Amino acid sequence: MIATIIGTGLIGGSLAITLKEKSVAEKILGVDLDAAHLQRALDLHIIDEAVSLDQAMERSDLIIIAIPVDALLKTLPAIMDKVKPGQVIMDVGSTKEKILQLVAGHPNRGRFVAAHPMAGTEYSGPDAAVRNLFTNKTMVLCDVKNSDEDALEMVENMVDSLQMKTVYMNGQEHDLHTAYVSHISHITSFALALTVLKKEKESGRIFELASGGFESTVRLAKSSPDMWVPIFKHNRNNVLDVLEEHISQLQQMKTLLEEEDYDTFYKLIQKSNKIRKILK
Amino acid sequence: MIATIIGTGLIGGSLAITLKEKSVAEKILGVDLDAAHLQRALDLHIIDEAVSLDQAMERSDLIIIAIPVDALLKTLPAIMDKVKPGQVIMDVGSTKEKILQLVAGHPNRGRFVAAHPMAGTEYSGPDAAVRNLFTNKTMVLCDVKNSDEDALEMVENMVDSLQMKTVYMNGQEHDLHTAYVSHISHITSFALALTVLKKEKESGRIFELASGGFESTVRLAKSSPDMWVPIFKHNRNNVLDVLEEHISQLQQMKTLLEEEDYDTFYKLIQKSNKIRKILK
Repeated sequence: MIATIIGTGLIGGSLAITLKEKSVAEKILGVDLDAAHLQRALDLHIIDEAVSLDQAMERSDLIIIAIPVDALLKTLPAIMDKVKPGQVIMDVGSTKEKILQLVAGHPNRGRFVAAHPMAGTEYSGPDAAVRNLFTNKTMVLCDVKNSDEDALEMVENMVDSLQMKTVYMNGQEHDLHTAYVSHISHITSFALALTVLKKEKESGRIFELASGGFESTVRLAKSSPDMWVPIFKHNRNNVLDVLEEHISQLQQMKTLLEEEDYDTFYKLIQKSNKIRKILK
Repeated sequence: MIATIIGTGLIGGSLAITLKEKSVAEKILGVDLDAAHLQRALDLHIIDEAVSLDQAMERSDLIIIAIPVDALLKTLPAIMDKVKPGQVIMDVGSTKEKILQLVAGHPNRGRFVAAHPMAGTEYSGPDAAVRNLFTNKTMVLCDVKNSDEDALEMVENMVDSLQMKTVYMNGQEHDLHTAYVSHISHITSFALALTVLKKEKESGRIFELASGGFESTVRLAKSSPDMWVPIFKHNRNNVLDVLEEHISQLQQMKTLLEEEDYDTFYKLIQKSNKIRKILK
């Protein structure tokens, strides 16, 4: 089949590489508003042809939209209007509720499959695209009851080819869960980077002592604001809830330190150690 | 030479393995109050002999103390009293000011070298000990002007053999800097784990969507409270300062989200992206 990637960045580019490698698609067309990205994707052989959106809609069996969620929200209606019979539209956006609301009731709703691969890195653009980004990771498919059977089947076969696990849920659940296991991690990293960068201005040498633990908790702070601000905007209520809860956990720890209540602090850490059952 | 490791856990055990491998020590003696750990360290060939503290003091050229900082504070005076001429005592504690205050003015102060390898993992005990834990990492040596020249030289040669970089600073600087690039990372991880574990109780499936970013920011929450509570206790003032700053950064992000001021949020993320110059 012929697949189009709209957005030739980290996720779109990595998908393109893998779909070609696994022979899911014989040809990959690329669409990108950023001409430099589009050319780079061609140069890196991530896509076979750079085309316009109209050309892509004319020629593709599968159209994958991999752009920041605010741009997705703007672009999707026009794409949905143009869908041809048999064509499948899939998004890979990091938030789902607003996107599903947008397409709800559209005459071509059945051709759309809402997906979110739980995989990524802190880098962006075509140069960040890598093979094997998705292997053994989880693909979330949302509200699949509203997708046509053949459209869902095409996406599910693709997910299998990518060697991904599939999890089904509705958009609301998705947005709640990602707030807790993805969006908050980015917020804490951004905040931690700001905290330490600020201190560096006063005390200079601070980063000489940084090692693996620091890098681990701060690396997400390299992530692009173009991708993340729209996510926080779309998922504002859930992100605010988890952020409030997280701040209150930190406040509690601060109070325990202030009061020198080390026994309770010890118990809190023991409780947090239960994360061992989740992280292998 | 004969080296003793007091505390056969992650750091002590990894040091023992590497000192033997690099032929820095021909024989490694092990001391541990935890009989099971001591036996395990023998079984894993991390140490050559399990001995009492007195035997270790009698027979060793170098004594490395690798126990939690509260235990270190209790044990160090007796060890300092027993030092024989030519013997070198080195600690690897994660806080330095209180330890340096403790030995200040001791008649054998010159035989002591205060060290902190900026390396570790979230695991503990002899089974966590690994070779190459220290390669290309940084060893902080504190207040070296108060160590005898030959004692410092022995430690510096050892650090070279471990293929580590050396950074020199005083105890006060060390404790300030580690609060920012190590201790706060652990606090945010503990708090994040608690936040998400709490939510899991209400919503179940939450961890199905966890991927690399989550793991990266939360893995330190597997760390042992036996090690970390004493660190937070010793470095309470610095940790409170950085925790307050970090909470205020998070509060600011929360306010920006509440007020839907996405432009300022975007600028904050851009600012935090400057961490790219530190993390390669």
